[in-house]
Amino acid sequence: MTVALIHHPVVDKNGQTIAAAVTGLDLHDISRAAKTYGVGAFYVVTPLEDQQELVRRIVGHWVDGAGARYNPDRRRALEMIRLKPSFEAVLEELEQGGAPRPKVVVTSARMGNNDMDYASLRALVSDNTPVVLLFGTAWGMADTLLEAADYRLAAICGGSTYNHLSVRSAVSIILDRLLGDER
Amino acid sequence: MTVALIHHPVVDKNGQTIAAAVTGLDLHDISRAAKTYGVGAFYVVTPLEDQQELVRRIVGHWVDGAGARYNPDRRRALEMIRLKPSFEAVLEELEQGGAPRPKVVVTSARMGNNDMDYASLRALVSDNTPVVLLFGTAWGMADTLLEAADYRLAAICGGSTYNHLSVRSAVSIILDRLLGDER
Repeated sequence: MTVALIHHPVVDKNGQTIAAAVTGLDLHDISRAAKTYGVGAFYVVTPLEDQQELVRRIVGHWVDGAGARYNPDRRRALEMIRLKPSFEAVLEELEQGGAPRPKVVVTSARMGNNDMDYASLRALVSDNTPVVLLFGTAWGMADTLLEAADYRLAAICGGSTYNHLSVRSAVSIILDRLLGDER
Repeated sequence: MTVALIHHPVVDKNGQTIAAAVTGLDLHDISRAAKTYGVGAFYVVTPLEDQQELVRRIVGHWVDGAGARYNPDRRRALEMIRLKPSFEAVLEELEQGGAPRPKVVVTSARMGNNDMDYASLRALVSDNTPVVLLFGTAWGMADTLLEAADYRLAAICGGSTYNHLSVRSAVSIILDRLLGDER
């Protein structure tokens, strides 16, 4: 399974399509969770050159710089990060060498009518079907991306009416539901 | 259920007992997860006065300041935070008015011999037994705290040999395992 963190196209609190800024701790927390659950790769998607440069600096510090010596465990996580300008570029890389197109699964905090449940996606992943799981930053992915997906995963419900998890929490919980040992 | 994030006594990478600095995003991510899963209160424990002041400033911004107007959902999460200088002070508050002493459950990334499994703790929590769940910052809680607990929860296993989740991820996953709807 592959995870992609989308910074564009996402929406702001008013529903306008924007390119969100990269949050450094997203790179750390999500790569550590991805490594813990045996995810194949973690794509960070942003078309903004200054944000790409920020990602390169953070990853460089922990993979090749002083951070790698200070904390080798962090290096093993952050070296999973691959930087791409668009989700199309992610798909292109995943299909290289004639590999089959992965199933594109989007996540959202909003409930939909035809959402895929966790047991079904867990079964698909266990079956070694290639899957790329997309997470949006800011107020979530733009509709163009949500609508182009093969499946939309059910929103996380914690039994309250509050559904404002951080993307770091959402990725962690969803990886545990799909790949964790405690079912 | 109650969650407590412990900044002292915790250990550094060499096993020395320290008081860890507060990470702002811990306050956001953990209060958002706690609110999502219907946790009763989120205690932030630090004896350091400058760190207590940092917590007060962050919480004040989002609960009473400009942040509350910008993002009312964030306010609903951060207003769950209660600041205490020690875990003893947390227990004292939880036992006020003659309330029964809660079961103290510690979490750790290290495996132990007599760890409590998730189904058992989930049953205890469903039964309305008061439980306070402790999470350590830095390299985890000091032994004095781990050994004084009633139970030690099994480490999260993601099926790999890598077990270096952020505390933000660990809290999110554990709350989902104990209180989530998807079992």
